[in-house]
Amino acid sequence: MGTEKLVVVGGDAAGMSAASKAKRENPNLDVTVFEKKDIVSFGLCGLPYYVSGLVEDLDDLIAMTPETFREKRDIDVRTEHEVLSLHPESKEIVVRNGENGEITVDYDKLLIATGARAKKPPIYNENIDNLFTLRWLKDGEKVRSYIENRAPQKAVLTSGYIGLEMAEAFRELGLEVTLLAKHENLLPMVDREIADVIEEELNENEVELRTNSKLEGFKYREDNEIGKVVTGGEEIETDLMLLSVGAEPAVNLAKDAEIRLGPTGAIAVDERMKTNYRDIYAAGDCVESTHIVSGEKIFLPLGDVANRQGRVAGTNIGGGDAGFPGVLGTAITKIFDLGVARTGITERKAEELGFDFVSSTITQGSRAFYYPGGSKVTIKVIVEEGSGRLLGAQLAGKGQVSTRINAFASLVNSETPVQEIQYLDLAYAPPYSPAWDPIQTAAKVAASKM
Amino acid sequence: MGTEKLVVVGGDAAGMSAASKAKRENPNLDVTVFEKKDIVSFGLCGLPYYVSGLVEDLDDLIAMTPETFREKRDIDVRTEHEVLSLHPESKEIVVRNGENGEITVDYDKLLIATGARAKKPPIYNENIDNLFTLRWLKDGEKVRSYIENRAPQKAVLTSGYIGLEMAEAFRELGLEVTLLAKHENLLPMVDREIADVIEEELNENEVELRTNSKLEGFKYREDNEIGKVVTGGEEIETDLMLLSVGAEPAVNLAKDAEIRLGPTGAIAVDERMKTNYRDIYAAGDCVESTHIVSGEKIFLPLGDVANRQGRVAGTNIGGGDAGFPGVLGTAITKIFDLGVARTGITERKAEELGFDFVSSTITQGSRAFYYPGGSKVTIKVIVEEGSGRLLGAQLAGKGQVSTRINAFASLVNSETPVQEIQYLDLAYAPPYSPAWDPIQTAAKVAASKM
Repeated sequence: MGTEKLVVVGGDAAGMSAASKAKRENPNLDVTVFEKKDIVSFGLCGLPYYVSGLVEDLDDLIAMTPETFREKRDIDVRTEHEVLSLHPESKEIVVRNGENGEITVDYDKLLIATGARAKKPPIYNENIDNLFTLRWLKDGEKVRSYIENRAPQKAVLTSGYIGLEMAEAFRELGLEVTLLAKHENLLPMVDREIADVIEEELNENEVELRTNSKLEGFKYREDNEIGKVVTGGEEIETDLMLLSVGAEPAVNLAKDAEIRLGPTGAIAVDERMKTNYRDIYAAGDCVESTHIVSGEKIFLPLGDVANRQGRVAGTNIGGGDAGFPGVLGTAITKIFDLGVARTGITERKAEELGFDFVSSTITQGSRAFYYPGGSKVTIKVIVEEGSGRLLGAQLAGKGQVSTRINAFASLVNSETPVQEIQYLDLAYAPPYSPAWDPIQTAAKVAASKM
Repeated sequence: MGTEKLVVVGGDAAGMSAASKAKRENPNLDVTVFEKKDIVSFGLCGLPYYVSGLVEDLDDLIAMTPETFREKRDIDVRTEHEVLSLHPESKEIVVRNGENGEITVDYDKLLIATGARAKKPPIYNENIDNLFTLRWLKDGEKVRSYIENRAPQKAVLTSGYIGLEMAEAFRELGLEVTLLAKHENLLPMVDREIADVIEEELNENEVELRTNSKLEGFKYREDNEIGKVVTGGEEIETDLMLLSVGAEPAVNLAKDAEIRLGPTGAIAVDERMKTNYRDIYAAGDCVESTHIVSGEKIFLPLGDVANRQGRVAGTNIGGGDAGFPGVLGTAITKIFDLGVARTGITERKAEELGFDFVSSTITQGSRAFYYPGGSKVTIKVIVEEGSGRLLGAQLAGKGQVSTRINAFASLVNSETPVQEIQYLDLAYAPPYSPAWDPIQTAAKVAASKM
């Protein structure tokens, strides 16, 4: 019996985490990663900061080069190798590489980490020079270089995490910004009370917000670039349009090989990150997760989730035993000076799922009342009636105050009731919190409603 | 049957929390608070920031005046009324007030919230003008006015939370500072690895640290002020000395009334904050708590604990039902730019208690590697062997990063094992954390040792 061979398809967060962990777990494993682009381990979430110039070079976003993986971790990383097909029955894959044409590679274990791609609605047209999406390195390059070369004055964006982060980037660069939200709530991952705080922040930073605003089309200038964005009620003049309407799992390879997809359209995996084939694992933005609170399958393409799933897959591939517990839907994003964070389920989701719940929202100072430099933090909690179990929490506040979401995530995960949270021994010192931490205050108010 | 009468002895955090909560719970309750000083609701923890000038007036530290309590909450607050004795059998107390001499007041329910006082070792002498402690308002006034009037150049302090906070205040004011630590570790609430980070911060801020340095005495100048501090190895020239060697519960009244004290010397209470007398409750810095991890009784005079205990006592006094769950020993303190935090038990304590445990320490960036403005955070975790249950955590890092202690406190409280914490769904975005949050990294490293 020769050395066991692991082949990884895709060299981003999940793929490289899995490759590294599998190799650490079983140093005899022969690990090859095929990546169709020319780099691996790219910090996708840093793109808005590259566009704004806060991060100077795209290279700054690369955590590790293929050479480093080869030298330090003995992982054979082949960039510019596109995997064309998977053959589970013969345990082979077919790979195209520029020089050698197509090659067939066999494996003992396969990891699919093909990621996700930006959704491109019918309105998208790649031939329009001032119409952008933002999912990948070249998208970031394209928008930054357009701004540098063409000095646009106005930008229109669709709302969402990326839209909000990019609104900040564009304002930093001095553009006039209009943000289009499809619904009443500009960020459906949070409820109204938190959306209100975000709207206030946008207002302070002179971002024009259009809610309930359906994007209907574009009007073009003579140079064939977008000159106006047409929405239900109006035509908005612009010099560029950034369209970010979410991501979708890149599952063509998996689908063609009859690897089972789940209800979300992403690859279905078990707790060990295994697909319906015994030797094929999948991890990262191409798989779906189980939401711990709702029990539902959810497609949640986030870098930190991909890292964790990759590590679980790698542990199991390397002969260890690890289980991915699912997700709480925890997220945090910076919108100008505001940190907005959420975990668990929203009030809207709790209604939809038929939970018997109460919700409450508080706004409190982030520091002792006499300590300078504090700000307000708004917290909404959704709590199961009766048990008092925390179902979800949302925060918005300036500076780092919203990193308290990690405490809420821990409390949702452990099903700690608000009656207990209100008296939980949290940390107090004037520069860091009021004597009643906002976490306790939120729990107190919710507990008083039960 | 007339209106029920609650009498509260002591108008700080615990007393005023209890009075307010009892009144909210039962609006018919007749509530009187006796406080021997001339103010109530004083933000004790703000004193170092008053001395440094960051907080301008002592009045800024007062959360609410007696008048406001009277008008807004219908609570009769009598300042400059010293309680002289408690008489549980007749349900009366004797109070001295300047104008009327001694009065006897009866109660239906009594709450003792007499707080704690600075320990004054034999070496302390209140007649020395440049020898200070820092527990109460007048202490803060005394040291600030001494600095303003006498412009001292050098200060010597004893180590501890207050000593470290005051070292920062004195450096801000331009003094040369020497800190004396009795033992090898300058802050016994944390282990060596975290003490190292603190020492580095002190070094950067030019604080002279003497560890294993026993304070033996003073040498006086001709004006009868301290000129030199004598320790084991040396004589240190100074212009002022701040002695903070901890606090002790103020339990004379309770003791004289045969209210039971616990093993720590503080008042013993049950979960509902009741003493050995049916109608006498106690809360705040004069009572002892149960440590949730060690199971031991602990004297932990902290403002946030006092607030929570006061609220529990007030709920029960007002006819509700609340239980104080005990403490985790959670604390955070700012030492120059460094936030140092801890929860649960230290490695030293785990050894003493005979736990079978592993510990590990990591240092990691606080933000994505490419996002500017990040810093290092050091985390030590102490984990029970086998179960993986987190017994304690300690953090040190610049800015707000150490507020992650609240997540650790939640995880210690819920006995979440590190095997689970490493895959917990925490929040990731480049401005707030690396893709693996330091909490997860600390758990990963500990889990790999099990």
